[in-house]
Amino acid sequence: MTISTTIRRGGRRRGRGDAAASSLAQPAWQHVTNPYQPMALFSREELDQIDATSMRILEELGIELMSPRACDVLERAGAEVDRSTQTVRMDRGLVAELVAKAPTEFTLTPRDPGRAVRIGGNSVVTTLVAGPPAVHDRINGRRASNLADYRNFIRLTQSFNAIHMIGNQVAAPIELAANNRHLDCYLANLTLSDRSYHCTSIGRGRALDGIEMMAISRGMTAEEMIGDPAVTTIISVNSPRRFDDAMADGLMAMAEYGQSVCVTPFTLMGAMTPVTLPAALAQQNAEALFGIALVQAVRPGCPVIYGAFTSNVDMKSGAPAFGTPENAKANIASGQLARRYGLPYRATPSNASNAADAQAVWETMMSLWGCVLGGCNLLYHSAGWLEGGLCASYEKLVMDVEMLEMMFAFLEPTKVDEASLGFDAIARVPTGGHFFGDPHTMARYQTAFHAPMLSNWQNHEAWVAAGAEDATTRATGLWQKALAEYEEPAMDPAIREALDAYVARRKEEIGAGEP
Amino acid sequence: MTISTTIRRGGRRRGRGDAAASSLAQPAWQHVTNPYQPMALFSREELDQIDATSMRILEELGIELMSPRACDVLERAGAEVDRSTQTVRMDRGLVAELVAKAPTEFTLTPRDPGRAVRIGGNSVVTTLVAGPPAVHDRINGRRASNLADYRNFIRLTQSFNAIHMIGNQVAAPIELAANNRHLDCYLANLTLSDRSYHCTSIGRGRALDGIEMMAISRGMTAEEMIGDPAVTTIISVNSPRRFDDAMADGLMAMAEYGQSVCVTPFTLMGAMTPVTLPAALAQQNAEALFGIALVQAVRPGCPVIYGAFTSNVDMKSGAPAFGTPENAKANIASGQLARRYGLPYRATPSNASNAADAQAVWETMMSLWGCVLGGCNLLYHSAGWLEGGLCASYEKLVMDVEMLEMMFAFLEPTKVDEASLGFDAIARVPTGGHFFGDPHTMARYQTAFHAPMLSNWQNHEAWVAAGAEDATTRATGLWQKALAEYEEPAMDPAIREALDAYVARRKEEIGAGEP
Repeated sequence: MTISTTIRRGGRRRGRGDAAASSLAQPAWQHVTNPYQPMALFSREELDQIDATSMRILEELGIELMSPRACDVLERAGAEVDRSTQTVRMDRGLVAELVAKAPTEFTLTPRDPGRAVRIGGNSVVTTLVAGPPAVHDRINGRRASNLADYRNFIRLTQSFNAIHMIGNQVAAPIELAANNRHLDCYLANLTLSDRSYHCTSIGRGRALDGIEMMAISRGMTAEEMIGDPAVTTIISVNSPRRFDDAMADGLMAMAEYGQSVCVTPFTLMGAMTPVTLPAALAQQNAEALFGIALVQAVRPGCPVIYGAFTSNVDMKSGAPAFGTPENAKANIASGQLARRYGLPYRATPSNASNAADAQAVWETMMSLWGCVLGGCNLLYHSAGWLEGGLCASYEKLVMDVEMLEMMFAFLEPTKVDEASLGFDAIARVPTGGHFFGDPHTMARYQTAFHAPMLSNWQNHEAWVAAGAEDATTRATGLWQKALAEYEEPAMDPAIREALDAYVARRKEEIGAGEP
Repeated sequence: MTISTTIRRGGRRRGRGDAAASSLAQPAWQHVTNPYQPMALFSREELDQIDATSMRILEELGIELMSPRACDVLERAGAEVDRSTQTVRMDRGLVAELVAKAPTEFTLTPRDPGRAVRIGGNSVVTTLVAGPPAVHDRINGRRASNLADYRNFIRLTQSFNAIHMIGNQVAAPIELAANNRHLDCYLANLTLSDRSYHCTSIGRGRALDGIEMMAISRGMTAEEMIGDPAVTTIISVNSPRRFDDAMADGLMAMAEYGQSVCVTPFTLMGAMTPVTLPAALAQQNAEALFGIALVQAVRPGCPVIYGAFTSNVDMKSGAPAFGTPENAKANIASGQLARRYGLPYRATPSNASNAADAQAVWETMMSLWGCVLGGCNLLYHSAGWLEGGLCASYEKLVMDVEMLEMMFAFLEPTKVDEASLGFDAIARVPTGGHFFGDPHTMARYQTAFHAPMLSNWQNHEAWVAAGAEDATTRATGLWQKALAEYEEPAMDPAIREALDAYVARRKEEIGAGEP
């Protein structure tokens, strides 16, 4: 019996034990880069046509910019502002001039410089899911977002090396006052993790608090962080063609302090854009470039990110759909557009499933591959997203970490040289034999392949004997283990005191609001 | 409230109803092509190094060919045969000369010419899973493969347009005599479906029966199918470097009748090859080209397929692993090698999960994307594979159909022109408005996006009210519905009679064997 027959028919005897299958053993924190040529969905000429349509949108139709201050900034920069409708029109020369001031890459440095992230070029950075109003896990069920879950999700981020940054309010603590809960979130981000995070940009105050608190944690002032950024924000355009007041003000606050701004039109084809992908991309492109131009008008050279979130609705029901084939295409094409303007690129692996199940995975994988093939730099919402972003899921977070680590392994370059071509090993092993004990194998086997955390490779009998748990059930074991083993990163007590004092002072200034 | 807010926060009200969610409505049967440039994992120089190592394997080490008849064929063609060890060595000139005789593309035409498949170029063809000794569904549990399940899987293949061909014995009817059960399988293939199929090539007789029966169904003789092929086979090399007697004889029988032969080394890195990917590919390449050269030596111009199945084992346990990052890389690089020799390319989307769960999907998606990016022509085993190929799963089959249809939608080219750029529609819709009722939307919405069969896009409340079924559970409903609605394709009674007579005659000739 050959080794191949042994393995195929019954040889999976030494299946990983139960303990190993739920191990948190994971690759070290790493700066991930994408070594492959990005995929081209469109030809150069097709991109020219999309770009030309974007420029017509900005020149002929304009963008409604609901912040008078922001209108002033762009008027001074040379845009034409219709004050009666708050419509801003920019010609393509001005757009190009302003966008060209943006850096192609930048680094965000949080309190632990070892957790700095590089955004742009061929780097790949991930974040925790942002914004869901609900939370779910298999033990406690579905519930409204709250501070206890918020803190747990930050602990899980800290526990898993595949999550590089914290997004905007993973599980907004809605039991707290709406006007100051962002302070509790920033405090959790800074004390329970050492990662960079997202500043809430609904208005100027929330953004500045995020900047100030990050500065305190770094032992710097907010002014000293200009030119040495640490945080980011997402400006979600109200597509079609509208920037609201609060978002524009948040954007300007971030730009004044030289912190990074990602401008992301949320464009579901059929609802916020036409049903056709080229039209959706032309509109997304116009809106994203408009916001980026505004950032550059506030502070030339301020770090920005070209954000894309083009998916589609179900035209039978109007329901939003994520991780569709059309979304995968948009993720690839948006990368072509971002690179056209030399901008770092953000997109999102997403899904519309109501459960952390097989659908959640095929939709996530569809959009994740679109992101990676599109040369995406910032995979926003890449851990924990469920229900089209309306629910943060503990199990899905673990499953996403598994998929991200697989993708990181795929992105490791493969070295071709005499040693890896292994002719001598092939010559040593007889026909029909096996390579298990060969010196070439023995010298490399411990690191030769990616070792997953959650995938179970036991044979069927061993899997049944161990309880026949499916992947979602095993994920429950892993997040529980991660929380049980979690260790808070050390922080200088003086910094901790200063953060607490900042939060107390700001809560007093803001006053007690309604939950 | 803008439309984006409506949709994000509560607007998923018109979620698809239960009936629609379990609809068999699916895209029509189609000839799928891949419009994108295949991905390059390796540079030209790196491929040269891999190829050079393959040639050293064939020149210096040779292949053990356990069929004396096949050794004769290659010796006549110019190979050096060591009869004492049945080792065949070929120099690179001879390999190149023989491989160059293979066609770059070909068509397999089954009894319904409308189900003909083109293999090669940028075509994408799928098959039902082949070979599992076990079967599973959520209603009846796990059981040994048998004829009733075999026939059900063929009915499901016929029901789902995403499955283009039947692989080798999806669920071998082990209750029947081992020496003649292939006849019952071929009869099921031909009467319950109109697809092309795989001929079992364990020895000459089984292969010839498959060819003869397909010829009867087409109203032709086996000789008339030379030059007009209808069926294929997989020759699984016993890696490292061994072709067994039965497989070599099956290969030659297929080649004598001009039917297509796919040569696939089954090479799990760390077991059947060294642990390094370049070495595994060099060995795979040597073995595949050797088999293809043998086919061409038997019949120059015979259709062949370059088969790749390089994955890895878990080095902690020795367990085979599928759908790993290393497998995805191998699927991409193997396409580069197949195209180097101008050969059609076969690979496999696979997984090692014990359940039709989230793991089954992330592993399948990892390898499926590898196949597609690698420019794979024949996605063998692409529907129903579970447990590393040891189990055919009814639910996984439905989930695979869902993923394949998503991938086919991704492979549809995106037209960029004035209509799809939609400037006028964008101009018509006010800022913050929506495109639902716009004429540009109304003219296109019915076909604008891929409509999935299994994905559920209801909002959470509607999904709970409908029973909160996860994707795997919904898949059970879909295969049951497919079997309930199945219609046997019409067949000329005279042909049916001839097929029955052939099976009866051959069973008598072969004699009754043991199950």
